[in-house]
Amino acid sequence: MTEQKATNVTWHEHNVTRDERAKLKGHKGAVLWFTGLSGCGKSTIANAVDRLLHDRGVHTYVLDGDNIRMGLNKNLGFSPEDRTENIRRIGEVAKLFADGAHIVTTAFISPYREDRDAVRELIPDGEFLEILVEASLETCESRDPKGLYKKARAGEIKGFTGIDAPYEAPESAEIILDSDSKGVEELANEVIDYLEANGFLKA
Amino acid sequence: MTEQKATNVTWHEHNVTRDERAKLKGHKGAVLWFTGLSGCGKSTIANAVDRLLHDRGVHTYVLDGDNIRMGLNKNLGFSPEDRTENIRRIGEVAKLFADGAHIVTTAFISPYREDRDAVRELIPDGEFLEILVEASLETCESRDPKGLYKKARAGEIKGFTGIDAPYEAPESAEIILDSDSKGVEELANEVIDYLEANGFLKA
Repeated sequence: MTEQKATNVTWHEHNVTRDERAKLKGHKGAVLWFTGLSGCGKSTIANAVDRLLHDRGVHTYVLDGDNIRMGLNKNLGFSPEDRTENIRRIGEVAKLFADGAHIVTTAFISPYREDRDAVRELIPDGEFLEILVEASLETCESRDPKGLYKKARAGEIKGFTGIDAPYEAPESAEIILDSDSKGVEELANEVIDYLEANGFLKA
Repeated sequence: MTEQKATNVTWHEHNVTRDERAKLKGHKGAVLWFTGLSGCGKSTIANAVDRLLHDRGVHTYVLDGDNIRMGLNKNLGFSPEDRTENIRRIGEVAKLFADGAHIVTTAFISPYREDRDAVRELIPDGEFLEILVEASLETCESRDPKGLYKKARAGEIKGFTGIDAPYEAPESAEIILDSDSKGVEELANEVIDYLEANGFLKA
């Protein structure tokens, strides 16, 4: 028993705390969880927000398809089970970055309400902000930069959100962005305004 | 085609680069990958290194059993396949933190050479430092703070590294720490000395 206690003491002496990391960074962490249909503008707006934050000295990181689907989650497909595990892992990584006092943005369709709520449960109270990027299916389909909707309509992609798989919109998103009628910079600034108004950033 | 190109341009305008993140942090990222038997001192030394780095203003993060096994990897057990996937995921997360210009330390037994080499392949050249914490089985078993060796010897834990599962020591670790005969602070400072001598830190 004595040895075990001694080990724990050593551990705690060394362990850099969450508060110490926040002090070094100059701000606390948060997760900006963008959700919405393919083509709604999630990644573009998330990266624009990330740019605005970085340029004012905030420590940030973006988790998106580019660095997650090719890496951590490359062994996952698009079945409902794999989508759930995909979001779970992203949530856990976002939690680590927020624990490291980053404002981390994530940009994934994340179509299932239950999966997003599970991530919210992981993150300390008040540090998870769900951001719905609203755009009509017509808008998204007309953009279709990667031709995915075309393939889904042709039946070449199965289980495509909005076509033959559901999108469950959040019921109480912290921020709702109207991507049908507003541009990237305006929407990114709406997010920044929210962060300032709610104490995540100094105005 | 025109629209697709335009989308890419927008993306790249917003994207905060690796170099920009390193500039904000004041240093580049690196992965300090501690490996060794249970009880060799990996976590304690890793946290001591993390403390020394943090106290000189380096942006750090520790990945260890406390924040990985209970979170990201809670759906993995200790079979060879699960151990491999465990290390793969940790490697991918370490890569993201290094990409975010952190000096990230990881403290996992990571007994298989092939698994550690796979992580090395993930990380940009020169940013992966394998740190072998050498301690004899006798030393580790005599410490046994959590009573795991006792359970493994009694057959209550199967596949325990060093007892009935192999530990494959690195053949070309960047740093080798002698945990049989040296204390935590001395070993932590050996790591700091290496980082200074090799340009990861300003001396």
